[in-house]
Amino acid sequence: MIKRVVIIGTGLIGASLGLALKALDDLQDGLILGWDTNAAELATALEMGAIDEALTPGRLMEPALADVYVLATPVLPILDWMQKLAPVLNERQLLTDVGSTKREIAVLGKKLYNREGTARFLPGHPMAGKESGGAALAQATLFDGATWLFTPIDAESSMLEQRWRALIAACGAEVRDLGPERHDEVCAWVSHLPQMVSTALAALLEDRFAGDAEGMAAVQAIGGRALRETTRLGASPYSMWRDVAMTNTEAIAATLAALEQRLAHVRENLRTPELRDEFATANKFRAKRSD
Amino acid sequence: MIKRVVIIGTGLIGASLGLALKALDDLQDGLILGWDTNAAELATALEMGAIDEALTPGRLMEPALADVYVLATPVLPILDWMQKLAPVLNERQLLTDVGSTKREIAVLGKKLYNREGTARFLPGHPMAGKESGGAALAQATLFDGATWLFTPIDAESSMLEQRWRALIAACGAEVRDLGPERHDEVCAWVSHLPQMVSTALAALLEDRFAGDAEGMAAVQAIGGRALRETTRLGASPYSMWRDVAMTNTEAIAATLAALEQRLAHVRENLRTPELRDEFATANKFRAKRSD
Repeated sequence: MIKRVVIIGTGLIGASLGLALKALDDLQDGLILGWDTNAAELATALEMGAIDEALTPGRLMEPALADVYVLATPVLPILDWMQKLAPVLNERQLLTDVGSTKREIAVLGKKLYNREGTARFLPGHPMAGKESGGAALAQATLFDGATWLFTPIDAESSMLEQRWRALIAACGAEVRDLGPERHDEVCAWVSHLPQMVSTALAALLEDRFAGDAEGMAAVQAIGGRALRETTRLGASPYSMWRDVAMTNTEAIAATLAALEQRLAHVRENLRTPELRDEFATANKFRAKRSD
Repeated sequence: MIKRVVIIGTGLIGASLGLALKALDDLQDGLILGWDTNAAELATALEMGAIDEALTPGRLMEPALADVYVLATPVLPILDWMQKLAPVLNERQLLTDVGSTKREIAVLGKKLYNREGTARFLPGHPMAGKESGGAALAQATLFDGATWLFTPIDAESSMLEQRWRALIAACGAEVRDLGPERHDEVCAWVSHLPQMVSTALAALLEDRFAGDAEGMAAVQAIGGRALRETTRLGASPYSMWRDVAMTNTEAIAATLAALEQRLAHVRENLRTPELRDEFATANKFRAKRSD
């Protein structure tokens, strides 16, 4: 049974996971331990009951502290923690993470874990979040109905891994497996590209109209749902996206180059029947979605 | 007083305007006459009470049929109707429209109207709509809280124009004036560009994954709010956008070219501090909006 969990990084995802786990019957007599480099985030998570106990840097490195360790930080610190924890963890423990990109994490995981004498490592990625992070926005229901991806680095799955998957499913998430490479490619299309487009569009509008008060007033007054939805992610902070851009650079660059070409095609065909084809193809994509 | 209104084009906007006008006390003993080239749309508008009477092509050309004529079709038919109605209308009548672009309409309006012996013409554009059109989706509240732009072609305003503006405000819309050129430029940024980006992104995803069932399944399963919001407008039909692209080509092309450059800049700087600046600029734009 999983009774003790360490959550490293008690921001939006880490604290929400703590709240969700603590709401489960299975973990009523368990213990959630937490750590964050940001003392305020750690204190907020403790106050809201997302964790039962705030760890110190010293206790964090004690052996056999918990059954499962969850790395809920951006990707670069996840890679650091994987290195730091490898000599501390043992075969009866599971290490998992919630990092937004999975290829580099999977490569390091294969090197350091799932070997004789090491802990098991199961890379994961909940498709949940908000434009802003932080423990204060955490919710026990954040993963309810969301997809939680795992990108296993090993064909065989341990009992502990299966229990962890069951707990995640009990939090309301739909658990799904994907290869790490495939994960990063698909996420480049459905998450990283939309983010970069939204950021670029919002930045472009800011630069174009910031020195033109009358124009900016018109943009704000006239811009409706279309503008809101296509620029909403422009509010996302760099700190949340830097590591994604650093660890999925090639895939993101490929999607951006493809969209640049596609926009040029639209631009060159605003008055030709090619534009009709473009709308028809887009209509097909949307017809497959129910939202 | 405005007592009789002709609405030409009883789709989503025309039928919603009919419903909104008929809900006003001022028009309780008035009459809304309607016409649409699509007989089904006209019948739907009549059945739902958006118009009191469906016109025939013959009656439509009778003189002195109403105080105000509203052209609620796409832009190219609006230009046609402006030509056809010019010899029929008289000085005591007002012609207005709801077209999505205003420059070409204003140029033609200046040529044909607001002269001795002609009707007055007041170009307008309600910033309201949905991804799909049609009278069946019409709502009396469609303009409630929406901005209704006018792009006057004349510095002076007639009493009839002022009464029409008051009726539109009574429908709950926030009335705002803008020059026709400025209108088309700002709309290119806040409406036409978001539409083209959404269409291009949805079309790109369709082409990339349509032959890759496993990939498309992953796209659909993993894609969350970010994908939904950035591709939602991909459902918009070409028929609604063809005339916009035809009559605002240069402004839309300029915004597309600017975004292509901006995306290339992001692509070339995924691993440099320039990306931080891009996010910071986008954050500034979003901080000015409350939605």
